[in-house]
Amino acid sequence: MNRIQSCPGGVTAAEGFLAWGGHVGIKKDPRPDLALIVSVRPAAVAGVFTQNRFPAAPVVWTQKVVKSGRAQAIIANSGAANACTGRNGERVAFEMARAAGDRLGLPPERVCVASTGLIGTAPSIERVRAGLPELVSALSRKGVGRAAEAIMTTDTRPKVCAFQTEIAGRRIRLGGIAKGSGMIHPRMATMLAFVTTDAPIDGPALRPLLREAVDRSFNRITVDGDTSTNDMVLCLANGAAGGKSLHRASERRAFFALLARACRALAMMIVQDGEGATKTIEIRITGARTREEARRAAAAVARSSLVKTAFYGADPNWGRIMAALGTAGIPLDPRRISIRYGEIEVVRGGIGRDEGALRAAKQVLSKSSSTVTIRLGRGRHTDSVWTTDLTERYIEINAAYRT
Amino acid sequence: MNRIQSCPGGVTAAEGFLAWGGHVGIKKDPRPDLALIVSVRPAAVAGVFTQNRFPAAPVVWTQKVVKSGRAQAIIANSGAANACTGRNGERVAFEMARAAGDRLGLPPERVCVASTGLIGTAPSIERVRAGLPELVSALSRKGVGRAAEAIMTTDTRPKVCAFQTEIAGRRIRLGGIAKGSGMIHPRMATMLAFVTTDAPIDGPALRPLLREAVDRSFNRITVDGDTSTNDMVLCLANGAAGGKSLHRASERRAFFALLARACRALAMMIVQDGEGATKTIEIRITGARTREEARRAAAAVARSSLVKTAFYGADPNWGRIMAALGTAGIPLDPRRISIRYGEIEVVRGGIGRDEGALRAAKQVLSKSSSTVTIRLGRGRHTDSVWTTDLTERYIEINAAYRT
Repeated sequence: MNRIQSCPGGVTAAEGFLAWGGHVGIKKDPRPDLALIVSVRPAAVAGVFTQNRFPAAPVVWTQKVVKSGRAQAIIANSGAANACTGRNGERVAFEMARAAGDRLGLPPERVCVASTGLIGTAPSIERVRAGLPELVSALSRKGVGRAAEAIMTTDTRPKVCAFQTEIAGRRIRLGGIAKGSGMIHPRMATMLAFVTTDAPIDGPALRPLLREAVDRSFNRITVDGDTSTNDMVLCLANGAAGGKSLHRASERRAFFALLARACRALAMMIVQDGEGATKTIEIRITGARTREEARRAAAAVARSSLVKTAFYGADPNWGRIMAALGTAGIPLDPRRISIRYGEIEVVRGGIGRDEGALRAAKQVLSKSSSTVTIRLGRGRHTDSVWTTDLTERYIEINAAYRT
Repeated sequence: MNRIQSCPGGVTAAEGFLAWGGHVGIKKDPRPDLALIVSVRPAAVAGVFTQNRFPAAPVVWTQKVVKSGRAQAIIANSGAANACTGRNGERVAFEMARAAGDRLGLPPERVCVASTGLIGTAPSIERVRAGLPELVSALSRKGVGRAAEAIMTTDTRPKVCAFQTEIAGRRIRLGGIAKGSGMIHPRMATMLAFVTTDAPIDGPALRPLLREAVDRSFNRITVDGDTSTNDMVLCLANGAAGGKSLHRASERRAFFALLARACRALAMMIVQDGEGATKTIEIRITGARTREEARRAAAAVARSSLVKTAFYGADPNWGRIMAALGTAGIPLDPRRISIRYGEIEVVRGGIGRDEGALRAAKQVLSKSSSTVTIRLGRGRHTDSVWTTDLTERYIEINAAYRT
């Protein structure tokens, strides 16, 4: 395995990428609301998008850009999701691409657009246009923090990571920024993640790798079981590291490891910043007949409100886990189920163990992160979903989001 | 249509039914925890049960009783769900039937058993045996309130209703009690409902009618999207109203209307008493291609945590409704969607209307019960699901349930 190291720089860690973020007036308060990420040279692009039936206008636009396989910039705003905005929304998404393209000397078809915020409102294109000159002139390799802040909504902190490795004698860097806190559920959440790399790799090669990396990371987290209209993960690869395109299987594997590492890191930052969450819990399924079965079982447990409130109360209420498992649509035999909180087994053969085990389990659940392992006793497959606890704070945040 | 009137008496409204409830020590606090419902003569029985993969021991037992088509008593406890309790749980469920049968002069095979409470614990059979003599000697037509209280867990109030009508010259009464507050979701919730009637109708005829009535009532409510291990709805029909079995189509229809009315009344009581809920909201879908499609769309909206927290904040955040609809797995066209809060249209053709409409919609949502109507524009079918708001109180109740 090629060694992977953490490095600074986030979305500008890779050669030839610049970023910046600022406040142009889409959000009412003075927080940054517009981000720009640019590659100094043409780049291959791949993307994974929400499966919500009502994709936002920028999702539809960016899907077209990604289809062409080439892109050189990303413009992203917070404060308005530009979803359910009809023709006007389509126009605004296109005009955002055109305005950024005009300033950067790129055709609009090379500019990805992303939005997050309140559904039903589109960002003011006038404000975007008015704010762009300053953003473009400030573009730099130091702009990553600003860009990461400009895509935040209910996030409490920016989400940034970068890693490097050596592939075929070249140093390859790959980094990203992300946002996401609520409306988080597998098959993409209200989350945006932009990953950039200087690896030489073309769009068709990048696409399946990104899809797999997303499937192992962003599609494995849940905060509230709601799937957004605006999700997207984009990866731009500009080849600035030099050399021939990564084409050997070993090179592709090494690059995939790098990409998967960054996606996982960003996904974990999102779940850890889940709205109102005080804890992150890995729901790990073992002994499933297939990986898909393991995943389905994990998701059924991870999204249960009763399981999540019990985590909040550090309550090893394993009965709720059994009840949630029992609705996963898998022909489970209760006598084969065991459940562990950390290393503490609380259920064996489908039956609860003694009060001592529950007391020890309560200790495990009091920590800010823990693992619940559920053995199904049906086979050899394993999978995990990461979830949060459900707290009063989640209610407060969401009962008052619009107003 | 035969006229249906409300009447007093709940589960003892029908001729020949007696009930009582008391505290035998299954719950730690002194609240009632054991209920007994008895018919003075043999009765036909039908039941609908949880589809959870891990049905509780009393569910498994009672399914056998119901299969025989005849039953004469129901013994039900709160404070211990007797789910995930293995062989011991099976033994306890059977011993409960036997103990009640011994006291009542019935074979255990005529006694239905139901439990609700913490999963993983079985009620103490010794305490049930010790408490039964007093319960049996207190059985009366006035015992309905006691029985309704004895099956409560996090319920804040007992749930009782009864109705009467005339069918083929005979006065027929039908009444019930129910419990349920959390773990409430279509395909049965942690809910118990016991309905009794003096109608002369046999088990095979009763079964499909009960199934349909449950489908239109208990399977149309959601509190938290969790499906319990213990749900059951039982209907005992003892024929005490006299006369021949209801066999004409018109008689069956009249009886079904009575049964459906009672099930609906009890289901509404459950959703109105949803854990921590301050509001009940009907999610009404119109313009669906099939009824099943309407129901699926309604359920997707009704279970969304973000939609439910917005209801709590009286926030007409229709974007969350659109986002939830978009995950229902239906090929919807956003341009055909309209959404009304009460009579106030806030979305037309998939696009939000003005701020004035939103202010008016906020008024609608401030009431304790309201209807959100979503038109899909795909056909003529209609269906509804009833849901609650999601509040801090839900979290408080469930973070501390065990401890």
